[in-house]
Amino acid sequence: MYVKRLALYGLELPRIEGPVNLAKIIIETAREDGLELEDGDVVVVTSKVLLKSKGLLANLKDIRPGVRARLIHKLTGKDPVEAEIVLQNSEKVYAVIPTGFLRDRLSEISKDLEAARKALESVKALMIVRMRNGIIASDAGVDYSNVPPGYAITSNHDFDALAKELREGIKRITGRDVAVVVADTEVFLSNGKVGSIDVAVGSSGIDPLAREFGERDIYGRPKFGGLDIVVDELCAAAALLMKQASEGVPVVIVKGLKYRKSENGVKDVLIAGRRGTVSVLVKILLLNILLKILHIL
Amino acid sequence: MYVKRLALYGLELPRIEGPVNLAKIIIETAREDGLELEDGDVVVVTSKVLLKSKGLLANLKDIRPGVRARLIHKLTGKDPVEAEIVLQNSEKVYAVIPTGFLRDRLSEISKDLEAARKALESVKALMIVRMRNGIIASDAGVDYSNVPPGYAITSNHDFDALAKELREGIKRITGRDVAVVVADTEVFLSNGKVGSIDVAVGSSGIDPLAREFGERDIYGRPKFGGLDIVVDELCAAAALLMKQASEGVPVVIVKGLKYRKSENGVKDVLIAGRRGTVSVLVKILLLNILLKILHIL
Repeated sequence: MYVKRLALYGLELPRIEGPVNLAKIIIETAREDGLELEDGDVVVVTSKVLLKSKGLLANLKDIRPGVRARLIHKLTGKDPVEAEIVLQNSEKVYAVIPTGFLRDRLSEISKDLEAARKALESVKALMIVRMRNGIIASDAGVDYSNVPPGYAITSNHDFDALAKELREGIKRITGRDVAVVVADTEVFLSNGKVGSIDVAVGSSGIDPLAREFGERDIYGRPKFGGLDIVVDELCAAAALLMKQASEGVPVVIVKGLKYRKSENGVKDVLIAGRRGTVSVLVKILLLNILLKILHIL
Repeated sequence: MYVKRLALYGLELPRIEGPVNLAKIIIETAREDGLELEDGDVVVVTSKVLLKSKGLLANLKDIRPGVRARLIHKLTGKDPVEAEIVLQNSEKVYAVIPTGFLRDRLSEISKDLEAARKALESVKALMIVRMRNGIIASDAGVDYSNVPPGYAITSNHDFDALAKELREGIKRITGRDVAVVVADTEVFLSNGKVGSIDVAVGSSGIDPLAREFGERDIYGRPKFGGLDIVVDELCAAAALLMKQASEGVPVVIVKGLKYRKSENGVKDVLIAGRRGTVSVLVKILLLNILLKILHIL
């Protein structure tokens, strides 16, 4: 056997608007095509469909922009209601990034220029924040697309707990032990490319990290590496089947993956906000200032 | 049909040390298990196996550390030969990040503490650079693992051209039109998690980006999003099958993906180093300083 195999099945679910039993819908949709969940499968689900299935939407009518949100609006043009939702869900704002610089690139990144211009107008600036749940996200994950008008979702939820609930729901109906990973689309500057990749905001039943740092290579030498963020790789893989704009495929079932089971979730591997992180960052900053002064960088 | 399907096949190749015809080896290994390449398949290959198959290794004996490399060594303990390779392959050094802060976390990220300590000792600092090929990478991708002793690889190569060559090699032997994506492991701070994810450093035959910015959602509203870095998602997906430390699976064949064909490669979507990027960054920085002064952040 020279070939190892992994199969991904994307499920087109019916439109979900109110609270529903998502585990049941996933299992039934899969069965309609003869697909059964088995022990060891990984179910990747978008944060959006998960929140919609639990009715966890923010009502925009309840949001009153405060002073900070109105100042951000004045300085960047960002919608004040949106700025307020972001602030309410954030523990720390790292930066505010105006999106105007994308204007000259719209023809490169879009097939429908007029729609692209409207989309860009709708988000004049992105706020990079650490949410109250400890996860770093742009605009606290605020998202209106495929959400009923007047509502929005955010990513400031305990997605590990929601993943666990879905996993237990699947176990109750099928008797099968699966892992659940919750995917969210995030903006990345990935080694020089700008765009989005789906990453994990919650998980249950799978170790988020491959803890193989220092494993030996084919020549027997310990290797600096082996710390793959497995849950992020699962979300990125699932994104290949999940179409983003039209609701498309919000659930992907992965069969054939070898992984370590774990009751730890994404929040257990977050380092942002950990005690000691700031002092490490300050030391790195000072070193780099020194290197610049010495003209090494 | 509620189910969309994607299949990934990881190939265990024989150990590659000198220059070989990689296209031929991939096709033969797949055939031994009854797997045939078809039009539209995507072949994801690690940068390492691609470079080894072309004999593109750096001989460490040829590297003489200069003044800058020796100063970096003095200040951070980083191996001076390694620092010199990084500098020779880089256009710009953004930062130097000592790895000592990982010491207290080794028991969390490794199963073999002694090997992990050795691995950490071997890389005392990571340099974040823009390589001469325009790609941002830690340590210019310098990597000794699974490379014959006395040699190293870097990521400062024209991987788009190497991808194209492999794609044409496959076409010559099989007559099939496939896309090729070159994967490299990169360190990420992904929404608060630290670890590595595989991303693309080269591609041929597939558009690196999903250019669907502003596409309409199920309520007909243009959406801020739809700019997935498809080639990165392919590499992350492939990484689920490619074991890192032991050489494992350096090639993954993806079947069933819908994608847009393109003669553009990764280098055509890089924004780092583009004219105008610096002035955009300066504007963003000034805005954020203003927001801090106003106590909004």
